Amino acid sequence: MKACLAQIHVLPGQPAANTETMLKAIAAARAQAAELVVFPEMAIPGYLLGDSWERDAFLRECEACGHRIREASKGIVVVFGNVGLDWRRRNEDGRVRKYNALFVAENGRFIGPRGGTYDFVVKTLLPNYREFDDSRYFYDLRRLAAEEGKSLEQALTPVITERMALGCILCEDAWDADYGVSPLDLLKRHGADLFVNCSCSPFTLNKNVKRNRMFAAHAERLEKPLLYVNSVGIQNNGKTVYTFDGASCIYDAHAHQIGLPARFEAGLLQADIPLDQSEFARPLDAREDGVADIYQALVFGIREFMQMLGVSRVVVGVSGGIDSAVTAALYSRILSRENILLVNLPSRFNSPTTVKLARTLAANLGCYYVEAPIEDSVRLTTAQVNGLAIASVDGSLRARLALSDFMIENVQARDRSSRLLAAFAAAFGGVFTCNANKAEATVGYTTLYGDLAGYLAALADLWKGEVYALGRYLNETVFQREVIPAGCFDLTPSAELGPAQAVDQGLGDPLIYPYHDRLFASWVETWHRTTPEEILEWYLAGTLEQQLGYKGKLADLFPSAREFIADLERWWRQYNGMGVAKRIQAPPILAIKRRAFGFDHREAQMGVWFSGRYLELKKQALAHQG
Amino acid sequence: MKACLAQIHVLPGQPAANTETMLKAIAAARAQAAELVVFPEMAIPGYLLGDSWERDAFLRECEACGHRIREASKGIVVVFGNVGLDWRRRNEDGRVRKYNALFVAENGRFIGPRGGTYDFVVKTLLPNYREFDDSRYFYDLRRLAAEEGKSLEQALTPVITERMALGCILCEDAWDADYGVSPLDLLKRHGADLFVNCSCSPFTLNKNVKRNRMFAAHAERLEKPLLYVNSVGIQNNGKTVYTFDGASCIYDAHAHQIGLPARFEAGLLQADIPLDQSEFARPLDAREDGVADIYQALVFGIREFMQMLGVSRVVVGVSGGIDSAVTAALYSRILSRENILLVNLPSRFNSPTTVKLARTLAANLGCYYVEAPIEDSVRLTTAQVNGLAIASVDGSLRARLALSDFMIENVQARDRSSRLLAAFAAAFGGVFTCNANKAEATVGYTTLYGDLAGYLAALADLWKGEVYALGRYLNETVFQREVIPAGCFDLTPSAELGPAQAVDQGLGDPLIYPYHDRLFASWVETWHRTTPEEILEWYLAGTLEQQLGYKGKLADLFPSAREFIADLERWWRQYNGMGVAKRIQAPPILAIKRRAFGFDHREAQMGVWFSGRYLELKKQALAHQG
Repeated sequence: MKACLAQIHVLPGQPAANTETMLKAIAAARAQAAELVVFPEMAIPGYLLGDSWERDAFLRECEACGHRIREASKGIVVVFGNVGLDWRRRNEDGRVRKYNALFVAENGRFIGPRGGTYDFVVKTLLPNYREFDDSRYFYDLRRLAAEEGKSLEQALTPVITERMALGCILCEDAWDADYGVSPLDLLKRHGADLFVNCSCSPFTLNKNVKRNRMFAAHAERLEKPLLYVNSVGIQNNGKTVYTFDGASCIYDAHAHQIGLPARFEAGLLQADIPLDQSEFARPLDAREDGVADIYQALVFGIREFMQMLGVSRVVVGVSGGIDSAVTAALYSRILSRENILLVNLPSRFNSPTTVKLARTLAANLGCYYVEAPIEDSVRLTTAQVNGLAIASVDGSLRARLALSDFMIENVQARDRSSRLLAAFAAAFGGVFTCNANKAEATVGYTTLYGDLAGYLAALADLWKGEVYALGRYLNETVFQREVIPAGCFDLTPSAELGPAQAVDQGLGDPLIYPYHDRLFASWVETWHRTTPEEILEWYLAGTLEQQLGYKGKLADLFPSAREFIADLERWWRQYNGMGVAKRIQAPPILAIKRRAFGFDHREAQMGVWFSGRYLELKKQALAHQG
Repeated sequence: MKACLAQIHVLPGQPAANTETMLKAIAAARAQAAELVVFPEMAIPGYLLGDSWERDAFLRECEACGHRIREASKGIVVVFGNVGLDWRRRNEDGRVRKYNALFVAENGRFIGPRGGTYDFVVKTLLPNYREFDDSRYFYDLRRLAAEEGKSLEQALTPVITERMALGCILCEDAWDADYGVSPLDLLKRHGADLFVNCSCSPFTLNKNVKRNRMFAAHAERLEKPLLYVNSVGIQNNGKTVYTFDGASCIYDAHAHQIGLPARFEAGLLQADIPLDQSEFARPLDAREDGVADIYQALVFGIREFMQMLGVSRVVVGVSGGIDSAVTAALYSRILSRENILLVNLPSRFNSPTTVKLARTLAANLGCYYVEAPIEDSVRLTTAQVNGLAIASVDGSLRARLALSDFMIENVQARDRSSRLLAAFAAAFGGVFTCNANKAEATVGYTTLYGDLAGYLAALADLWKGEVYALGRYLNETVFQREVIPAGCFDLTPSAELGPAQAVDQGLGDPLIYPYHDRLFASWVETWHRTTPEEILEWYLAGTLEQQLGYKGKLADLFPSAREFIADLERWWRQYNGMGVAKRIQAPPILAIKRRAFGFDHREAQMGVWFSGRYLELKKQALAHQG
């Protein structure tokens, strides 16, 4: 059976544009004599649309676009995702009834599941974790079945086209491990010749290898081919930006798989699907993701995000450190050199070493470069505020303001970003970047309106160690020369905001990245998130290195439990206190892994919490120490 | 029957502290010889906790705290909300099974619903709109019943204490209009002497009057008293901060109601509840909320937010305009005058009129005041960027930067906030405020890192007209004298960033607030949100004034459809474009009404959408005009 998997580029919130893309893909599939063409989930509206689902005019347009696709289905079976509407019923929020739906059109007609309520298939399993909010907008098949007094098995039937019985599901329906019900298995009982999974599934590091394993196992169990079609593009929920890598493919009943050669590219995969259980030649892709995939996702995500905003020029503040160097190097793979301006913004605390590194980086990239000292402005601000007499108008209150060294550190950081980089970006006709990494973002080791400002935080889902690895990959594999100067890797990481952070004396950030990267990951990224209670328990049991995957020895970092606990509490407080406050006003973060800050990892400001058990363990540990 | 409604102050994420509060309330109720004491929903953990529900250590602590409450129930029935855990089962995200649960303890034992699975009551209806994400964290009773092969009616049974059958529900369970099932009616079938609704329900303008109407109708239909217990405090989801006003009360079967005298105050309502259907003396509170309630919620919310952050001093940039004047006046009701510093930050574009208004306001409030001109710094920034030659290091690329007047407007705004107000706040030992109103926030008529910066945007859920009304209320009712100078009300609203915004010439903002307030409200706040399609349809039908509740005449604002459409599209583009980008980095917003920006009204960056129908209507309208 000749089929086309239409891995299209979906623009969220632009149904008319997506419909045009789909009509072209249908024409191309027809030209290749395909009998079936399959599009991703929510191909018409897009998926991450915030509360735009509450706009009835938008819903009507999506519905109308669906009819245009239906009309184009002469002589071909077209499967696509769209919002399914029932204007006579209501969702539980009182708004119009909406389904995350899969439509099958053939010869100008929609074909619903056999004996079903609607002329579309309703998604059964609605994900409600990370960035997914399906239940906020959509009614699911389990509730619909209950409402109609049916069992789920009765409601989950195949779609019967002229030639085949299609077992149709949407995305999460195949990720059924924790739902206590398997839509695919229920469909199998009714008999299907072929299974189709339409998805809108963001790239997450190592998700593809997991999906290949799971979906191949499904196909083996179902004894039928399983088509997986995912979209390409970027979508976001405001605070967090997701890339969609496509990676559409077909699994056969023998744990084999064929797919498109490239991720992150729109394309039409044309394949002859053996309905008779013969095998594809190609084995399952079991490759783990690595730094090359991170690089690819970042470049794709940044490029797409800029395109969406209509921005084509960028200003990067380059300190001589690794984060800004990697950021600049990444942009040089996206924009031509005349669209990039690197700005080094030295104060008296910046060493000649780092200024030289910034300049060398700019020379290597060939882009615009300028040095803009902040000394005069910081002096002006200090003079304007420090020592200033303030009073009430009647003179009955009088006081004098004073800026501490720490406050002047923040003055410098804000001067760089909000005063200069923002002005440079405007004058250059572009935007400026936020270069923060995930360790800094976790504990708010950044200045609000300072180095935390920018239009996008592209590296903020990468730990410091991952930023170094990406830098090495850029030099060794992408550029195949030393574009990022070796000094950027060798330098002590430092904000260079005061004499205590003098890199030439080996002074710098208070973060011990190899350890803190791993510690913070256990707070943020693990499915069962740790708190000081688990960390201290493991420390006392002598298993913390192993639990965190930290290669060094904790005894080398912390001579005793007292120092260990002080460090643990310091960063835990920062993570739950100022860290949250700063992230609320942080730029959008490009998600790479399975827990990006923003609306992937949701947070409230509510102060710092230590469990009673932690406080008990701490008392014991310190008492023991004497 | 003697009962106490314990309207406690709940600290989100602080189970141990909340448990102490509850133990004190139980002791007080016992001292009053009460037989029953009822606490709010999620009294132990708090409710809006972001993804802290994923921390197993936190869950274990909540469970342990629940047992402490249980142990304190000797001789009294204690009803309270907590997370209900089933460590052997899983949620659909694979994490431990969690319920939004209500516990009833008596004589040291938990009493579950008759014949139920657990020793706690499970919430049936989980809200998934606005700030509510119950389905993200909790399993509901409908799914539990289905999992166990029961009907919902079988699962929804009363809790039988020594003396009574209690019909127990949680918050949304009583807001059942759109769910197709009424937990209260199902409970009634089993027979109950008394119904209890434990809630954690944020203040929203006019929600109380609606609840009184609905809950009184429930009590009439149930023919039994209904106790409503809500918490006091603030909780947030990062981007949006909610106040909780308590307003706990008892409804009898005759649409009468008794409650605590004050909203937004913790307290114990002690009442003799007539189980025999005799009536309370007091009629239903059917009062609509007004500006006094807005004022009360704002003062409460700001005070609590500052307490949570541990902040007690504030810097307000005062321009002479109404927004900053109202902000300053509000803070003067929260902090003593020596903890408030007003800063006027004039440039050469600021009129003597506005500087004088700022000074008069400060004199009226008696707090610290200082004028800090930004002229030198703006000149320095302009000199540093405008006309600057930039080049690649090898000199092969050369260009010159230029700052337009518009860019220099933004330089001024950022200079004020990120350079000066931030430094003033640090030196003053406090924070600085964001004074943006909701109209500005909607269309991003603000500068990022400029007037959109600050620790909290207290007025950003109020339209400009509502800010004026609040200002009048402050003068007339709160201060009972002209604290906010009359000039602040009379002035043309203006950013004063350039000669085109000279207030003394009557020039100012491009927003026509009386109309745009209403237009934007229809995009943001209505349950069925409008788009340009509906707006243009109504305009063409001559009904737009009425649809929006705009008191003026559109013909006076826009001589023809061309001007009307140009204005509509300008602001729609801003709302969906830069407006979203700016809101992503905006401070937390204090929610007052039913759709605050942040994580109440969720948004994605995805460019601007106009429906096909709108484009068609527009073509007709413009063609018609010729």
